[in-house]
Amino acid sequence: MLRAAVIGAAGYAGIETVRLLLGHPGFVLTVVTSAAETGRSVEDVYPALVGCGLVFEDPEACDIAGNADVAFLAVPHTASLALTPALLDAGLTVIDLSADFRLKDAAVYQSWYGTPHTSPGLLEHAVYGLPELTRASLPGAKLVACAGCYPTASALAAAPAIEAGLVAPGPVLVDAKSGVSGAGRTPAPGTQYCAADESVLPYKVGSHRHTPEIVQTLSAVAGAPVSVCFVPHLVPMSRGLLATVYLRAAEGLSAGDAVDAYRVRYADEPFVTVHVEGRMPTTHEVVCTNRAHIGLAVDEASGTLVVACAIDNLVKGSGGQAVQCANVALGLPETAGLAACGPVV
Amino acid sequence: MLRAAVIGAAGYAGIETVRLLLGHPGFVLTVVTSAAETGRSVEDVYPALVGCGLVFEDPEACDIAGNADVAFLAVPHTASLALTPALLDAGLTVIDLSADFRLKDAAVYQSWYGTPHTSPGLLEHAVYGLPELTRASLPGAKLVACAGCYPTASALAAAPAIEAGLVAPGPVLVDAKSGVSGAGRTPAPGTQYCAADESVLPYKVGSHRHTPEIVQTLSAVAGAPVSVCFVPHLVPMSRGLLATVYLRAAEGLSAGDAVDAYRVRYADEPFVTVHVEGRMPTTHEVVCTNRAHIGLAVDEASGTLVVACAIDNLVKGSGGQAVQCANVALGLPETAGLAACGPVV
Amino acid sequence: MLRAAVIGAAGYAGIETVRLLLGHPGFVLTVVTSAAETGRSVEDVYPALVGCGLVFEDPEACDIAGNADVAFLAVPHTASLALTPALLDAGLTVIDLSADFRLKDAAVYQSWYGTPHTSPGLLEHAVYGLPELTRASLPGAKLVACAGCYPTASALAAAPAIEAGLVAPGPVLVDAKSGVSGAGRTPAPGTQYCAADESVLPYKVGSHRHTPEIVQTLSAVAGAPVSVCFVPHLVPMSRGLLATVYLRAAEGLSAGDAVDAYRVRYADEPFVTVHVEGRMPTTHEVVCTNRAHIGLAVDEASGTLVVACAIDNLVKGSGGQAVQCANVALGLPETAGLAACGPVV
Amino acid sequence: MLRAAVIGAAGYAGIETVRLLLGHPGFVLTVVTSAAETGRSVEDVYPALVGCGLVFEDPEACDIAGNADVAFLAVPHTASLALTPALLDAGLTVIDLSADFRLKDAAVYQSWYGTPHTSPGLLEHAVYGLPELTRASLPGAKLVACAGCYPTASALAAAPAIEAGLVAPGPVLVDAKSGVSGAGRTPAPGTQYCAADESVLPYKVGSHRHTPEIVQTLSAVAGAPVSVCFVPHLVPMSRGLLATVYLRAAEGLSAGDAVDAYRVRYADEPFVTVHVEGRMPTTHEVVCTNRAHIGLAVDEASGTLVVACAIDNLVKGSGGQAVQCANVALGLPETAGLAACGPVV
Repeated sequence: MLRAAVIGAAGYAGIETVRLLLGHPGFVLTVVTSAAETGRSVEDVYPALVGCGLVFEDPEACDIAGNADVAFLAVPHTASLALTPALLDAGLTVIDLSADFRLKDAAVYQSWYGTPHTSPGLLEHAVYGLPELTRASLPGAKLVACAGCYPTASALAAAPAIEAGLVAPGPVLVDAKSGVSGAGRTPAPGTQYCAADESVLPYKVGSHRHTPEIVQTLSAVAGAPVSVCFVPHLVPMSRGLLATVYLRAAEGLSAGDAVDAYRVRYADEPFVTVHVEGRMPTTHEVVCTNRAHIGLAVDEASGTLVVACAIDNLVKGSGGQAVQCANVALGLPETAGLAACGPVV
Repeated sequence: MLRAAVIGAAGYAGIETVRLLLGHPGFVLTVVTSAAETGRSVEDVYPALVGCGLVFEDPEACDIAGNADVAFLAVPHTASLALTPALLDAGLTVIDLSADFRLKDAAVYQSWYGTPHTSPGLLEHAVYGLPELTRASLPGAKLVACAGCYPTASALAAAPAIEAGLVAPGPVLVDAKSGVSGAGRTPAPGTQYCAADESVLPYKVGSHRHTPEIVQTLSAVAGAPVSVCFVPHLVPMSRGLLATVYLRAAEGLSAGDAVDAYRVRYADEPFVTVHVEGRMPTTHEVVCTNRAHIGLAVDEASGTLVVACAIDNLVKGSGGQAVQCANVALGLPETAGLAACGPVV
Repeated sequence: MLRAAVIGAAGYAGIETVRLLLGHPGFVLTVVTSAAETGRSVEDVYPALVGCGLVFEDPEACDIAGNADVAFLAVPHTASLALTPALLDAGLTVIDLSADFRLKDAAVYQSWYGTPHTSPGLLEHAVYGLPELTRASLPGAKLVACAGCYPTASALAAAPAIEAGLVAPGPVLVDAKSGVSGAGRTPAPGTQYCAADESVLPYKVGSHRHTPEIVQTLSAVAGAPVSVCFVPHLVPMSRGLLATVYLRAAEGLSAGDAVDAYRVRYADEPFVTVHVEGRMPTTHEVVCTNRAHIGLAVDEASGTLVVACAIDNLVKGSGGQAVQCANVALGLPETAGLAACGPVV
Repeated sequence: MLRAAVIGAAGYAGIETVRLLLGHPGFVLTVVTSAAETGRSVEDVYPALVGCGLVFEDPEACDIAGNADVAFLAVPHTASLALTPALLDAGLTVIDLSADFRLKDAAVYQSWYGTPHTSPGLLEHAVYGLPELTRASLPGAKLVACAGCYPTASALAAAPAIEAGLVAPGPVLVDAKSGVSGAGRTPAPGTQYCAADESVLPYKVGSHRHTPEIVQTLSAVAGAPVSVCFVPHLVPMSRGLLATVYLRAAEGLSAGDAVDAYRVRYADEPFVTVHVEGRMPTTHEVVCTNRAHIGLAVDEASGTLVVACAIDNLVKGSGGQAVQCANVALGLPETAGLAACGPVV
C-alpha cells in the first residue's frame, strides 16, 4: 500500500479525492490537510464520510513528506507552486490538481494568472494528466499536472476529430455547461442557492483561465496553433459538466463516419463511451463516476461537427482524474478505485 | 374590452396566456378550451389561478367565434391549420402560438413537419410575431404567427449584429439552453423529475424544428441566405431560456462597439435590455416577465462575437409574446398586461 | 402618494418589499438603503429590477425621516430596536419586518434573542402584523411588527381550529419546510448551492426563535397557554414555505367539518384559500404571491387534525405581509399592490 | 456465486437493485426482466450502466426458476402475490420489494390494498425485511418481505425509544419528506419536472398504504397497539427520504439520554449512525448508500422527543435493503456489495 496525502482536502476537489482514495485498494490515506478546517474530523465536515476516522490537519504543521509516498495537491493556483519543489525533493510523487504546472509556457501562465511562475524549470518535467491523450508519458512521472475539468471534456470531445482529420481549419467553439460545484466550496454570492437555482449564466466569456489550457492541448494534437472560443456557463445542478464542441466538418463528413472514428480512437479506453449515432450524453449518466460519455452529430446545413462530452467535473474533471493519473504514474491498474457505478436514477 | 378566447388553454403556453390575460386591462377572457381537461375548473388544474372562475370548455362543442374578438391558439402544430380559416372567416383576429404559419414557404413547412400545409394561401397574410423585428407589419394584422421560443432568443441576439454589419460571412451557431417547461405539459419519460433533475442534455442536434424558423428570420435580416447550426439543450429548471449565439466578428470589432450598436438598436424597445460590457444575462432575471436581456462579448483570439440572450420561454417565448403581438395588432398599448416584474430573488 | 423608505433593502426581505412597492399604486419609493451595497444601483445588484432607477443609499448618511411617510424596516433584529424610536418621533409609520417588536414580553425577547429589549415601552403600542388575526388593531397603527414567515403559516393553519373548538387540549406540533431564501442573502456554508441542493435538513429543533412567537399567537387565540413543538426544515427550493400542523382533534371531528369551519373563518379574507376536502396545498401554487393556501385532513386512527398551510416565505411571510399591513394601517385598500398572480407553471 | 434474477428491473427499485448486484461479490445477475422494456439493453435505457451487457427480458417468456437461486421482485403490489408461490416451489429464495407480504394480517392487506390476499398461508413464513429489527429471523428465510421506504425510516427512528421506555403513551406522528423517485418511474402529471420542481406537497394524509406497516412494526416493538399519524410529503429532489418522528417524551428525558440510548441500541449496526446531540441528519449525506443517519432532540416545552432519520429511499428504502436482507438470509456478509460511499459534495 502506498501512503497518500491529500493537501487542501476540505475543498470539493480535495474531498472527492479523499472519497475515492478511501475505497482504493492501492493507497492508504495517511494525511489530509485543510487550513480552514484544521482540527475538525472529516466526518464532522462531511457526514457522508462517517466512520473514516480522518482529521483535517494543519498544512503548516504536519509532516507530509515524512508520511506519504504521493501527495495530491487540491489547492488553489500558486499554492501548488509553493509546495511542489520540496515534496519532489523529498522523493514524493506529486499529483497536482491545480493549474500551476499545466501550461508549458511560463509566460502564458503569467499572462492568465497574473503572477510569475516560480518554478519554470519544473514545467518540462511535469506531465499533463489526461491519460486518454498523454498516457504514454505518465508511467514513472514524478509531477503530474492533472487536466482541468473544462479542458478534459473539451479535449476528449475535440481531439479525435482533429487527429483523424475530420475537421477543416478554423476556430473551435466550446460551449460548456457546469454544475455549481465547479465554482468551489468557498461561500460566495454567485454560488448561493438562491442565486444559482433555476438559472443559467454564461460567465468569463473569452477570459476563463481554462482557455489557454484547451488551446495548448488542441494545438498539440493538431501540430499547429488552434484558436479556441471558450464560453462556460453555470447551470443549476451540483455536479456534472457538458462541453458542446463545434468544429468545421471536413467535406462530406457524415455522423456515422464520425461515430466510427471516435469508437476506434477510444476502443481501449476504460472510461470513455461513444454513443451510437443519434444519441447524446447527459451529465446525469456519468455523475459520481470517472466516465466520459460522448455523442456526435453533423449539421450539414452549416457544415458543423457537433461533439458533446459529459463528465462529472469533480471526478473525471478533478479527483477521479487525479487518481487515474496516479494509478498510471505509479504502476497500479488504471481503473483501481474508480470502478464504482454512480446513481442510475 | 375585447373578448379573448384561449384555445388549448391547459397546456403550458395556453395557461401562461390565460395568466397574462387575466391581468390585462384590455381583454376579457370569455372562452378557454382544453380537450384534455374539459369540464374541470381552471383553478382545479392550476390552483395558482384560484378565484379566476374559468372552466375548461370542450373545444369541439363551444362557440369560439360567437364569443370572442380574438383567439389565441395554443395548440400543437397542424391543429392551428385546422382552426384558423374558420376563425378568420368569422372575423376574429387569430394570434397563433403554434408553428403553423411561421414558415413562409409551404414546402419548407412540409419538409420539417412531415405534413402538407393545408392553407398555403394564408401564409402571405400571416405576420410573423416578433415585434422587435416585425412591429411595422403588426397593426391591423388578422393572423399573427408568433415566433417560437428559441427563434425569439436567437433572433434578438443575432439580428442587430447582422443589421449593423458587425459580422463577417459564415454560419451562425446557436447553443441554446431551455428549462423543462419548453417540452410541454404532456407526461413523458424525458420530462419526469428524476430524468431531468441534475442533468444537462443536448437534443435534436441539427434537427429541431425551430431551425428553419431561425434561418428564415436571420436570412431576411441579412437579405441573403444565412446558415445556422442550432443545438438546443435541456437544463434542470422549470422556466427560462438562454441562447448563446456565436457569430464571426467583423475585423476589429470590440465588445464596446457591439454593446453600443445593440443599445442603439434596442433603445426604444420596452422589453429589451442590453447589459453593460462585461455583464452577461441570467435566465433568472427575466423569469415570469416578457423581457429579453442581452449581453455581448468579443473573443479576439478566435474572432468571435458572442451574444447571449435570456428570456422566459413561456412569456417572451410564448404567452407574453402573443399578448404583445395582440396588443400591437389591435391597437392597444404594447406593454398592456405585461408590465409586472418577476421574482427578484 | 405616500412616500416609502425601505431600510435594509438589499436583503431578500427588503428587495421583495421594494419589488412590491414599485408596482404599488399608493406608494412612491423615495429611499432604499443598504449598508452592504451602498452606492450600487438596485438593478446592478438585482437585474430583474432593471429600469427602476433606484440606488442603494448609505443608511447612516441618508435622511429617512425627511423623505418618507412610512419606513419599512427589513433589517436584522436589534437594528430595528435602534432605528424605530427616532422614526416614530419624526412622525413616520414604521412597518417592521424584523422580530424586534413581535414579542409582547421583553423578558421573553431577551431570553430568545440574548440581548435586552431597549424599548420595552413601545411594545404595548406595537401591533402584531398578521391581518387575518389582528386586522382590527391595524388601522392607524404607527408601529407594526409584522409576523414572521413560520409564525404566519403556523397561525393561519392552527388558529381557526382553536377558535372554533375543533381541538382537544395538548401541544401543537408544527413541522415546517422552508425554501432556502428563508435563511437570508448573506453567503454561508449551509446555503451554498451544493450544500442545500438535493437535501432536506431539520434545523434548530425546539430552539428556533420563531417558537415563542407561535406560542404567543396561539395562546392569545386560545385564551390560555398553548405549548408548541416547532421543527423547521430546509428544503431544496428558493421560495415557499409549508407548515404542516398537527393538533389533537376534538371527539368526532370530521375533515368535512374542519374544512367548513375554516371556510367560514376565512370567507372574507382576500389572500386565504381553503381547499376542498382531499386536496392539500403545494408551495408552488402560492409562490410570488401574498396568498396562503390551506388544506385539512383528520387522521381518525390517531385522533389528529392535520392542517397544511402554504405561503411564499418572502411575500406573505415577509414583504407582502408588510405591504398588506401598511395598506391597512394607512387606510389604503388591503390588496393594493398585491394582486398579481405568480407563476402558474 | 449465487445466481440472481431481478423481476421488474426497469423500475427505479429494480434498477437500483441491479446497480448494487452488478458490484456485489456474491451474486451474478443472470436474469433481468421488464415488461415495458422487453428487448432493450439495460444500458440503452440507463446509460449509467453502460457496459453491463444485460438485456431486459420478457417476464412472461423467460425461465426465472431455471436460471436463478434468488429472485428479487421489484414489481407492483399483487404482482408479487402472483409470482411468489411458484418461485418458492422451485426452491428459489424470494426477496420481495413489494408490499405483498409485509402485513401479517390478510384482512388488513385487503382493507388497504383493495384486493384479497391470495396467499395468506405464506404470510406466517414471510420474514419482514428490516435487519436492524428482524435480523434474527432472516438467516435461511425463503421469503423476505422487505420493509418499505417510509416504514424503514420511521421504524429506525421510533423503535429504540419505544424499546428503551423513553416515551410516554400516545400517538406517534411521522412527518416524512421524500424525493420524487419514491413515486416511481411511470410518467404521471404530478411527477413531471415542472410539477415537482420548487414545491413541497403533502399527499395521502392519513391514507398512505405504508401506514399499517408502520403501525404493525411499532406495535410489535411496543408489545401493544401503537397509533400512528403518518403524513408524507413530496420534496423537490430525486432521491432521499427524511422521517421526522414526534413521540411523547418520558418525564425528565434529556436529549443526551436519548442519544446515548440510541447509540447503545445501534452500536453494532453497520449501516446506522446516531449523530451527536445538536446535530441533525441531512438526506444528502446518505444518498446512494445503504446508510441511515439519525438525530435526536427533546423539546422540553411540549414534552416531545423528536427523532429524524435520513435514508436514501432507493437504497436503504428499497434496493439496498433487499440486498442487505438477501445477504443475511443467504449467509453472506451483511455489508457485501453495500459498502460504497455516496457523493460527498
